[in-house]
Amino acid sequence: MSYHPLTEEQAIAYARGLENVFAANAELQSREIGDGNLNLVFHISDPASGKSIIMKQALPYAKVVGESWPLTLDRARIESEALIIEESLAPGLVPHVYKYDAELALTVMEDLSDHVIMRRGLIEGNKYPLFAGHISEFMANTLFFTSDLGMNQQQKKLRVGQFINPELCKITEDLIFDDPYTDSPNNNIHELIRADAAALTTDTELKLEVALLREKFLTQGQALLHGDLHTGSIFITTESTKVIDPEFAYYGPMGFDIGAVIANLLLNYAGQEGWIKDEAGRADYRAYLLDTVKDVWEQFEAKFGALWDQHLVDRIAHTPGYKESYMKRLLQDTIGYAGCKMVRRIVGLAHVADIEKISDGETRARAERIALAIGTSLIKLNRKAESIDEVLAIASRQV
Amino acid sequence: MSYHPLTEEQAIAYARGLENVFAANAELQSREIGDGNLNLVFHISDPASGKSIIMKQALPYAKVVGESWPLTLDRARIESEALIIEESLAPGLVPHVYKYDAELALTVMEDLSDHVIMRRGLIEGNKYPLFAGHISEFMANTLFFTSDLGMNQQQKKLRVGQFINPELCKITEDLIFDDPYTDSPNNNIHELIRADAAALTTDTELKLEVALLREKFLTQGQALLHGDLHTGSIFITTESTKVIDPEFAYYGPMGFDIGAVIANLLLNYAGQEGWIKDEAGRADYRAYLLDTVKDVWEQFEAKFGALWDQHLVDRIAHTPGYKESYMKRLLQDTIGYAGCKMVRRIVGLAHVADIEKISDGETRARAERIALAIGTSLIKLNRKAESIDEVLAIASRQV
Repeated sequence: MSYHPLTEEQAIAYARGLENVFAANAELQSREIGDGNLNLVFHISDPASGKSIIMKQALPYAKVVGESWPLTLDRARIESEALIIEESLAPGLVPHVYKYDAELALTVMEDLSDHVIMRRGLIEGNKYPLFAGHISEFMANTLFFTSDLGMNQQQKKLRVGQFINPELCKITEDLIFDDPYTDSPNNNIHELIRADAAALTTDTELKLEVALLREKFLTQGQALLHGDLHTGSIFITTESTKVIDPEFAYYGPMGFDIGAVIANLLLNYAGQEGWIKDEAGRADYRAYLLDTVKDVWEQFEAKFGALWDQHLVDRIAHTPGYKESYMKRLLQDTIGYAGCKMVRRIVGLAHVADIEKISDGETRARAERIALAIGTSLIKLNRKAESIDEVLAIASRQV
Repeated sequence: MSYHPLTEEQAIAYARGLENVFAANAELQSREIGDGNLNLVFHISDPASGKSIIMKQALPYAKVVGESWPLTLDRARIESEALIIEESLAPGLVPHVYKYDAELALTVMEDLSDHVIMRRGLIEGNKYPLFAGHISEFMANTLFFTSDLGMNQQQKKLRVGQFINPELCKITEDLIFDDPYTDSPNNNIHELIRADAAALTTDTELKLEVALLREKFLTQGQALLHGDLHTGSIFITTESTKVIDPEFAYYGPMGFDIGAVIANLLLNYAGQEGWIKDEAGRADYRAYLLDTVKDVWEQFEAKFGALWDQHLVDRIAHTPGYKESYMKRLLQDTIGYAGCKMVRRIVGLAHVADIEKISDGETRARAERIALAIGTSLIKLNRKAESIDEVLAIASRQV
């Protein structure tokens, strides 16, 4: 079947044809639930059996800017191949893939409707005590075992070739590392923080650090990244965490994924300016978020370190001092990319609901300034950082 | 025609079939002149017209260790595609490719018999006043215009995929970054320097620096490298320089190529212990070699910098301070890789004639110790280096 965006009727017909999913005569229902920018997402269910699946189809353009921004359908292949690798390395932490249809750029996968998008959960003030454990396990396993440390180094080179992802990398390169630091028409700047945003474009110390982090994003094929690991790419319950949407997957610097998680926790931390009105309650939730930031890093560090000790395939990495150097640079990259990912969500094209949905303009501006101050401080800290506690101290100083 | 190693008769028949090279009835002669480890090299000539060509055919194994080390024939594609890119970026500085035959893993190219292998020229004590200008132009052009600085960054990612080169990279990873620092059966250690070689395996400062340089070789896709740019891969006359044999080409750190050139000049510098007997003559030639090292770097730096100023396609690279940071890191990488490439030629599998062919054992050991001392000092200097003059000072101290 040649490529065309599916209608709901076509989606149902396709689902009916899948092997071993629905009963032959099941009465299937479809809802298109995509609220992203790049894909159709059909929720197909059989009320009689209670069974359901997700069918995600890539669109040949980015909806966010209309049909004028064409995008390769190859990203559906990348997403589905990345999900399969991730499931093999971090079972239970990603949706299961039932089928990938290359012609239709369509991935059929496990339905996670009993989960909520983590970003929404945080905005609602929920706590997820298992999250740091889950996400650190996901990152430690996927990053370690796709790197030169944890897999055959010649196979890894072939995998770099499998995940060459120019178009989606370009979105990151433009929206994260370029636009926020220049007077770009892509930027989306709240009227009340115009001066703060303008200051980014003349801060030469900041811009140099961003240029260096961007260079690493462009050149350092360290591990197979998820590539877009924000809290909108995570489905969650108090018991379960599922990482979705790895269409930005490519071989890049590990700190970019870890930094994304930390940045989005800190964006919510800034956004709490507008959500929890009770001061003690807000302080408590923010303390929870900072604890989670610390936990994510420290559990990642511990798990990655344990894999290093037990599953290293690279004999040279046993060289005294090498592991310490590697982990320190990982922390520094993590902090730098966390900063970049915060700044872009305040002044760049795509914002986050944690802050954007704050209805009062002054409150929202306060949250935006907190996020910008934390983000720029992290960017300036990155190459000098020694400990995750410096991140917590920076965040604490801003509220 | 399915793959098989050509006989001389078959090579002649093939050459006769080429379009627009030889006259239809030319009486062709063939000589197999390969002295490398990995290929057949036929010199095909027509004495009547004086025309000649080179036909280089990849063998499916490495001769150096017998047929037991199988090697991909894909390296012939990589070599030929790299040569074509290099010629487009540095015309006149590589042999012209007439034809590439994928089935036979065969590249038909310009004959450079009027040139000599530079390594031999240096052993004979010849000076090449144009060399630094030529090689710096070759490196500045090929490295700049295949990097994110000088070409479209999305096209560059596709090119990274085109030059995934696992097997030949593995040779480098083993022979340069691993074996010399451990008790490997691949090593080839002159009896008289056993203690010096053993010291490498316990020098933790040295081994950490090598591990870090190796990590960059494994992960940093900065530019399309030649990948094996020693003086045996350079054909030369006093007027002309031609870089050959880019079968190790892949996307890696630029300093690896620049370091290779400098390392091989310094290996000859060490080897002069055994060639020029007259002390003043030797000092003069060594001064010429050090001048050339300085020229290679400084002319590279000037030309690369001029391309940066005039042909930068990456707007972000105009960020104040970025160019200075980039060039400093390039120098540091260059110095580190130069050191690695010297050490491997003394204790690793494949040696260089500049030193290996010194007949007197004590003299050869002295040359080897000079090379080892320079190489290990460069490796330890690399991340701290500020100027190429530090390299000259290190080399001067050893003789």
